[in-house]
Amino acid sequence: MKLSEIGEFGLIKRIQKRPFAKSPQVIVGIGDDAAAVLPTPGKSLLFTTDILIEQVHFDLAFSTFFQVGYKAVSVNVSDIAAIGGRPLYFLVSLGLSGKELLADIDQLYRGMQQASRKIPISLIGGNIAASRTGFFVSITLIGEASKNQIITRSGGKPGDLLYVTGTLGNAVAGLEILRKKERFTDFTPLIRQHQTPKARWQEGLLLAKEKIPSAMIDISDGLSSDLTHLAHQSGVGTEIELSQIPISFSLKRYTKWIGTDPIPYALHGGEDYELLFSVPLKKANQMEALIRNKTISARCIGRLVQKEKGLLVKDRKGIMHPMKAEGYDHLKGASKN
Amino acid sequence: MKLSEIGEFGLIKRIQKRPFAKSPQVIVGIGDDAAAVLPTPGKSLLFTTDILIEQVHFDLAFSTFFQVGYKAVSVNVSDIAAIGGRPLYFLVSLGLSGKELLADIDQLYRGMQQASRKIPISLIGGNIAASRTGFFVSITLIGEASKNQIITRSGGKPGDLLYVTGTLGNAVAGLEILRKKERFTDFTPLIRQHQTPKARWQEGLLLAKEKIPSAMIDISDGLSSDLTHLAHQSGVGTEIELSQIPISFSLKRYTKWIGTDPIPYALHGGEDYELLFSVPLKKANQMEALIRNKTISARCIGRLVQKEKGLLVKDRKGIMHPMKAEGYDHLKGASKN
Repeated sequence: MKLSEIGEFGLIKRIQKRPFAKSPQVIVGIGDDAAAVLPTPGKSLLFTTDILIEQVHFDLAFSTFFQVGYKAVSVNVSDIAAIGGRPLYFLVSLGLSGKELLADIDQLYRGMQQASRKIPISLIGGNIAASRTGFFVSITLIGEASKNQIITRSGGKPGDLLYVTGTLGNAVAGLEILRKKERFTDFTPLIRQHQTPKARWQEGLLLAKEKIPSAMIDISDGLSSDLTHLAHQSGVGTEIELSQIPISFSLKRYTKWIGTDPIPYALHGGEDYELLFSVPLKKANQMEALIRNKTISARCIGRLVQKEKGLLVKDRKGIMHPMKAEGYDHLKGASKN
Repeated sequence: MKLSEIGEFGLIKRIQKRPFAKSPQVIVGIGDDAAAVLPTPGKSLLFTTDILIEQVHFDLAFSTFFQVGYKAVSVNVSDIAAIGGRPLYFLVSLGLSGKELLADIDQLYRGMQQASRKIPISLIGGNIAASRTGFFVSITLIGEASKNQIITRSGGKPGDLLYVTGTLGNAVAGLEILRKKERFTDFTPLIRQHQTPKARWQEGLLLAKEKIPSAMIDISDGLSSDLTHLAHQSGVGTEIELSQIPISFSLKRYTKWIGTDPIPYALHGGEDYELLFSVPLKKANQMEALIRNKTISARCIGRLVQKEKGLLVKDRKGIMHPMKAEGYDHLKGASKN
């Protein structure tokens, strides 16, 4: 069915019926001029907004509407996770090119539901507009945290250890495989990391509750870029060891197969949505215990140092090199600065 | 200067320095993974999101970047006003086509500042993305209200009087004049209403504090469409009198000059951002007093009736006709249903 048959207000009613989490704190939901929620007394509210645009953030040749919906939720949940918060409510803005069918939009919201299956977030509003150009979906996600549990990018100190969750470089390798149009079931985890990344919201919440990290950021632009943000905002330098960067078995297989090194994927590839955080030395034992008892999958990749030392990477031979941020800049493209 | 010269993170720093209101309740602002604010104890939080897309909502041939920035703030403030809230914080998402210069983006934010000159709203975050298609600006605005002062679209009852602030039909006439490319200083107020509409936030807040309206909506799609929304969501019918619809001196002059009737402009023209609200009879004296002492500029245009009566308009001869909603539907275009 074409969207023009159901119309803007018919579509809004249809979206309203989707079984997202219902929160008793939502007093006005979808369908009014604004949504209204009662905040939890004593908590601060967190806000983030992130957009996925056709041909910029995704290609409908490589991703389904379901996957785009899934990813749109994940990238926003990841931002709330990175500040140590609990995701609660979200608003969805759609830009419709006119080519989408009702079934596509149904799939989009089904993807959002799947991404929030274990996260009780309520859909409280949004906006639908013709875009005449490409399709896009923009989400604003609202979360909450105790004031003393918020972890910004700016609290890192020289001497703090640097940790990263999961493994890095999978998403960019997945996109590369999709672009090559060769499908190998061996590399499904890489492709899945590009199409339907999972946000580390439970890890972010746990770390914040345990008050372990001094600073935290999610890896959306790539380790080298996001570590640069954390270092600049904390006013410190960094030393990371290439040999410690966690690389998945799938990425190792793929890079071996194409005859290349997995490190550039892990160091500069974006969209992994893992968490990168600094841990004061006095909390290192507590952090290592969480890793040992498998409460969290993370690895120490280096440490923060005095700002004057700059941003450094130690290669496998133990030689230090300056680290270059080679992540994505939306105004410059894939920058090499 | 080209935006690629300053880069995404240079632009974010520049935006960060703009003199928007500073609120002591903002504990994490622009530049982190998420923003954090401390809500006012006992208040509910309000959320709205609205977007302006090039070639859909504006044409850069008819509107400057300053005007687009101004309007982007106003349309969102209007939604918070329509629910009876006080606007507080906002996030801005930009989609950049690559054609914009740094000076354009500076003008855009200058327009946002001008629109919020008398409204102490703080810019707390956002997102910048390449859009490759057209330029767009999406704002999420957060406000607050006491729980018992929130005015939804659904509280109207048969017998309530219907009021509208200001005058209607100016914005659509202004756009028509711009499209004709004939400029007449006489019609500046019409053009201004299209380019830089003022949101009725003080009126919305006053009405909510005085607990006068039973239901309220802002007129963004056009009186006939937005009254239909209010009626459907309140489960009532309506009777409005064409002779009572407030029409500006400028619109009368313009329609006289082109030899047409101002009523269709006022009845179906969108983007006036006036407030439409229902008032229980027992509050009518209080409402009329606010109008008499010029605290608010508003006029009674009809009343709510039993649902079974439908949506009616009384013409100048006293004859009743069914009212047709002819506002804009983003999936159907300018609909005539």
